[in-house]
Amino acid sequence: MKAAVLKAFGTPLVIETLPDPHPGAGELVVDIVAAPVLSYAAEVYSGARQYPLHLPLAVGTGAVGRVRAVGPDATRLAPGDWVFCDPTVRARDEALAPDILLQGLIAPSPGAQRLQAHFGHGSFAEQQLLPLENAFRLGPLDAADAARWCALGTCLVPYGGLLAADLQAGETVLISGATGQFGSAGVAVALAMGAGCVVATGRSEAVLADLVRRFGARVVPVALTSNESTDQQRLRQAVPGLVDKVLDILPPLPDATLVRTAAQLVRPHGTVVLMGGQRGELALNYAHLMRHCITVRGQYMYPREAPARLIGLIRAGLLSLADVALTRFPLDQANEAVAHAAQTSGPFRYTVIQPDATPGTEQGGSVRYPLA
Amino acid sequence: MKAAVLKAFGTPLVIETLPDPHPGAGELVVDIVAAPVLSYAAEVYSGARQYPLHLPLAVGTGAVGRVRAVGPDATRLAPGDWVFCDPTVRARDEALAPDILLQGLIAPSPGAQRLQAHFGHGSFAEQQLLPLENAFRLGPLDAADAARWCALGTCLVPYGGLLAADLQAGETVLISGATGQFGSAGVAVALAMGAGCVVATGRSEAVLADLVRRFGARVVPVALTSNESTDQQRLRQAVPGLVDKVLDILPPLPDATLVRTAAQLVRPHGTVVLMGGQRGELALNYAHLMRHCITVRGQYMYPREAPARLIGLIRAGLLSLADVALTRFPLDQANEAVAHAAQTSGPFRYTVIQPDATPGTEQGGSVRYPLA
Amino acid sequence: MKAAVLKAFGTPLVIETLPDPHPGAGELVVDIVAAPVLSYAAEVYSGARQYPLHLPLAVGTGAVGRVRAVGPDATRLAPGDWVFCDPTVRARDEALAPDILLQGLIAPSPGAQRLQAHFGHGSFAEQQLLPLENAFRLGPLDAADAARWCALGTCLVPYGGLLAADLQAGETVLISGATGQFGSAGVAVALAMGAGCVVATGRSEAVLADLVRRFGARVVPVALTSNESTDQQRLRQAVPGLVDKVLDILPPLPDATLVRTAAQLVRPHGTVVLMGGQRGELALNYAHLMRHCITVRGQYMYPREAPARLIGLIRAGLLSLADVALTRFPLDQANEAVAHAAQTSGPFRYTVIQPDATPGTEQGGSVRYPLA
Amino acid sequence: MKAAVLKAFGTPLVIETLPDPHPGAGELVVDIVAAPVLSYAAEVYSGARQYPLHLPLAVGTGAVGRVRAVGPDATRLAPGDWVFCDPTVRARDEALAPDILLQGLIAPSPGAQRLQAHFGHGSFAEQQLLPLENAFRLGPLDAADAARWCALGTCLVPYGGLLAADLQAGETVLISGATGQFGSAGVAVALAMGAGCVVATGRSEAVLADLVRRFGARVVPVALTSNESTDQQRLRQAVPGLVDKVLDILPPLPDATLVRTAAQLVRPHGTVVLMGGQRGELALNYAHLMRHCITVRGQYMYPREAPARLIGLIRAGLLSLADVALTRFPLDQANEAVAHAAQTSGPFRYTVIQPDATPGTEQGGSVRYPLA
Repeated sequence: MKAAVLKAFGTPLVIETLPDPHPGAGELVVDIVAAPVLSYAAEVYSGARQYPLHLPLAVGTGAVGRVRAVGPDATRLAPGDWVFCDPTVRARDEALAPDILLQGLIAPSPGAQRLQAHFGHGSFAEQQLLPLENAFRLGPLDAADAARWCALGTCLVPYGGLLAADLQAGETVLISGATGQFGSAGVAVALAMGAGCVVATGRSEAVLADLVRRFGARVVPVALTSNESTDQQRLRQAVPGLVDKVLDILPPLPDATLVRTAAQLVRPHGTVVLMGGQRGELALNYAHLMRHCITVRGQYMYPREAPARLIGLIRAGLLSLADVALTRFPLDQANEAVAHAAQTSGPFRYTVIQPDATPGTEQGGSVRYPLA
Repeated sequence: MKAAVLKAFGTPLVIETLPDPHPGAGELVVDIVAAPVLSYAAEVYSGARQYPLHLPLAVGTGAVGRVRAVGPDATRLAPGDWVFCDPTVRARDEALAPDILLQGLIAPSPGAQRLQAHFGHGSFAEQQLLPLENAFRLGPLDAADAARWCALGTCLVPYGGLLAADLQAGETVLISGATGQFGSAGVAVALAMGAGCVVATGRSEAVLADLVRRFGARVVPVALTSNESTDQQRLRQAVPGLVDKVLDILPPLPDATLVRTAAQLVRPHGTVVLMGGQRGELALNYAHLMRHCITVRGQYMYPREAPARLIGLIRAGLLSLADVALTRFPLDQANEAVAHAAQTSGPFRYTVIQPDATPGTEQGGSVRYPLA
Repeated sequence: MKAAVLKAFGTPLVIETLPDPHPGAGELVVDIVAAPVLSYAAEVYSGARQYPLHLPLAVGTGAVGRVRAVGPDATRLAPGDWVFCDPTVRARDEALAPDILLQGLIAPSPGAQRLQAHFGHGSFAEQQLLPLENAFRLGPLDAADAARWCALGTCLVPYGGLLAADLQAGETVLISGATGQFGSAGVAVALAMGAGCVVATGRSEAVLADLVRRFGARVVPVALTSNESTDQQRLRQAVPGLVDKVLDILPPLPDATLVRTAAQLVRPHGTVVLMGGQRGELALNYAHLMRHCITVRGQYMYPREAPARLIGLIRAGLLSLADVALTRFPLDQANEAVAHAAQTSGPFRYTVIQPDATPGTEQGGSVRYPLA
Repeated sequence: MKAAVLKAFGTPLVIETLPDPHPGAGELVVDIVAAPVLSYAAEVYSGARQYPLHLPLAVGTGAVGRVRAVGPDATRLAPGDWVFCDPTVRARDEALAPDILLQGLIAPSPGAQRLQAHFGHGSFAEQQLLPLENAFRLGPLDAADAARWCALGTCLVPYGGLLAADLQAGETVLISGATGQFGSAGVAVALAMGAGCVVATGRSEAVLADLVRRFGARVVPVALTSNESTDQQRLRQAVPGLVDKVLDILPPLPDATLVRTAAQLVRPHGTVVLMGGQRGELALNYAHLMRHCITVRGQYMYPREAPARLIGLIRAGLLSLADVALTRFPLDQANEAVAHAAQTSGPFRYTVIQPDATPGTEQGGSVRYPLA
């Protein structure tokens, strides 16, 4: 099979032929139909992010595809099934806190590196080997829509955070960093889960306005400045009532002011979930947390069964994949796809690699159409 | 104050003047603006239902009104606040399983009867005395809309069941008895909570069709016959995928066939909540429950904080009070209101008593208008 | 490797040589040190229980052993580790309600039968192939004690039920069927979990007395007769206060009287867990369940992480393996072991097969000694 | 009735006669038999702690006594019942996050001050007025043992934290500040809840040794120095395996080093509960919390039903009140009691005021005896 291989950090991906994978027990092989390209993939492959990963490796994180072959112990999955390929590989020999590999992206611990040695190759390839538990049936699908199901992988991240926050229908949630690709997906997911009000914060007024245009009056936009007192004042004026939950999903920023500003806004007995990229320490007032019974939870990715649930939300029409801009690249143009994603990915804008796409303008352009 | 008093079971309500209530600590008095009339109120007041209740008593269960006066320990409520009066009075001196009085309706245990002796008078009155914990702020309100907030009390019952089922956004829930007033409210609440699909069962094809008209394709109607094998076949054909949760909210029926048919449909690891009126025993297959890890939960009313949450759903626009038919009666016509409710109440049709309504045709008619 | 193979239902086990298993990814091979023999194994192998299972097959369900080899994706387990081999194999390609195979015992669904085709061979063998997630590290161990860790497999079953009941420290739990091997283990586990009082019911006064001797005054024994009114009276007299939780773990009985008697005793807002062998239907009063918010939960086996937690309870000294009678058989005498288990297994009495045991009286006798 | 009244911060308590309280609905009056004196009560009454409180006021926080009279809506409590008087008064007119008054101690918000205006008088008195929901039946009691039930109030605080941590039987919990009165009570409570191992940290080696003497090998003592690297090394050496939960219950200290040291020790997916007195900010590594899915929860006091549950643990013999040193003072010597508590209260050492105690040496001395 053809795959886009990273030979060394800082070198371009090389399209080469790897041996076809064959599934053993507990495994399956998927024919990749579309694989999303992360906006920061270029930073990972260049080495700038210093993500631990053994090279050479076919990169690419998550995909949509069709089951090619299953191991002998598969009970539900069968060749031909459309599936979402969850890149979150969890160690099977630890029940409470397993090591986690993100396929084709990061192996942040010795245990994860053992997982990488077996399940390492990513989704920028014609085929991918996955643990059986990482493939989730999508149901019947029009092949033309496969690419936009890649948004599922982005939505899953804030979904994990909103589950960790135990978001209940009718509650108000503040999403700190709502103007990024993950944060804006979080706004959509929170509304699909029944949030009564989503306070969307970020620095781009244009993106905030677009969120209101897309989702209506349940979204309350608040443009922030990183000036703590200005921001707190803006939030106090804008937020109607109490904030039940806060999800921080900001990218790495020079300081923690925005995180703090958001976290301090949660109501007594509320929950703040941390999923962002902040480096360094987060300082919060001990007595405030204690006196008001506030919970602060770190959350990495999402629970094992989350993809099945989120697929249900999409299938029910509660979370739409329709109004999403897609730029398609064939596998041969993987480097172009990575560069394109770095420059253009953003809220509701996805770059995908589709192995069988005819190289050309059609795949290279932005297509926006309603999902049947 | 004027009130509609039941002197003895089987006699008409008498409009008479009772002493004005005054709130002690832990209490408030509400000026009643609108009180809903249950469809089966006539059966309670006639004695046919044999509900335990000490008479004479001002009847009426739940209301919408404005705070008139609060006890000295009120911290948030203040005179003038619009509030929902929750009739579910819980004994304060038992933490784990308190006795429950439903004001103006039923006092089913010795403990509940002690509660009735103090908090007994119901909402068919100009004023009502309530425990502080039973008044929930509605926020600013147009007085013309007060009556339709009475639907909140009906919605709360299935909401309690759906909370007991731990309904998650995207799940499929079967509501057994969806064509009654409580069941149809349950369909609306389940959708507001983010249910991906609501399988609505009942015997009235017209009401099922109206549910689909109101709520769209997320509602899957299934007309049942009480013939177990016919019904199972219809359900199997109609239901798309697995049923995660079942809520039984059927009225008393001669046999338990419909309850069983619904309960048996839940998927492995699913939950069946029992809130209906079935008399006698429910027989379920032990090995089926055990092998498939199925939970069957009885649920009476709803948790103490449920009204606050459901008000949030309504305020957020997720649960609409707009498309509801109201028939209004003044307090002087309480007996007419009870008779009218018995004849006409049904899905999305409410009869309310409003103390200050001018008696006349306007209140006697059905008004349907959108809520601003 | 040598194994005890069931060629056809109703025929004796045959000791023969099977190919040594080799672990693929997601798998490990364990050198079996001790495998427990279920008291009802004879009924399964004879065909009397009509358990679905493809033959021929090396039987045996659960074991204690040492890791021989691991697949390439193991992150924590390593050759030489002492492990508990959990026979509960869950399908990996279904997140919410996976098919379950009990190795060497029962494959009750088409999905489970696919699992059996790969992971079928049981623990009456020198080696066993297992999914990685089914091996749980026991920590350092004296080989002489390995056999008594087989009790872990028995304790896990009621532990699953007590987890399903959400048993809290200080609560009162009634164990219905406390005089059997699983029920008596449940008494020990409930006390280890901090139960304030365990009401132990059963028909054997001798076993009940032994439970009190072992565990002291927190055990309240109640000898039952299967006469519903006599039993209810005895329970009412014996039980000090309210019963928070009920665990039914009775073997198959001609009628459901004892199950009903126990279930009806739970307090309002309490939980009844069903893990027993009752055939046919369980009829419970609908209005009683509803009015008192009672939960009835079927539970099959235990959650995936339960063995890790229960090992913690044992390691902490809260659950003792010391006062257990063991009868040891070598693998060659597997048929004798099965016959012996059928005749003698009971509360705190275990029959185990140890491949390397020298055949002879030492292994054939009952040894009772304290665990270091 | 006689009561010890604080007229102004910094002045001695004055024993004077207040009007006897009479219970309205939702209230009861208790004849106080024993009221505990907090070790830091002197700092509150002197004004040093600057606790918000309207004076004059009968002080005293929590008590054990007998019901004298109940309001008309009491369903379970009756005159003569032995009860624990929970000082944690929660506002009734807010369901999700009520204001909290600690009777006779602190009213930290405007809402709490409204509560104080009605329920303010504390337990250093012959009688006390309480909300019905604040009295918990203790069951039959020998009057001579009433005073040692005052330890319940101290145990409840760490119990609230351990419930917030969702401590499970068999888990390892680190109690940071285990050598204080609340922390040492937390060690006892954690063991009663089935903790497999309690890592007890503090600076007093003598107290740590006493904890091991009292509770045995499940307690792992670690003497800390406030030098972060030394302490981390000691902890790493001493702790056997992973720490599932951390409870910080340290008193106010000049810096947060000890809190951080403890918090950083929790395992992935573990929980840190904050109940201590730290002032200022707690800085924790964002990426560490996020990558390891760690939860940090502030917790103030305990849930409403916690006293009922903890009484169950004591009644079951799982939590002992026997080995506790008591110094008794009559109400007339309230100032001496406060001074004595400041000087001598500590782990398992309590000072109590008993209104009917004969003034003299017997009550003034330390008595240690086993509870029947």
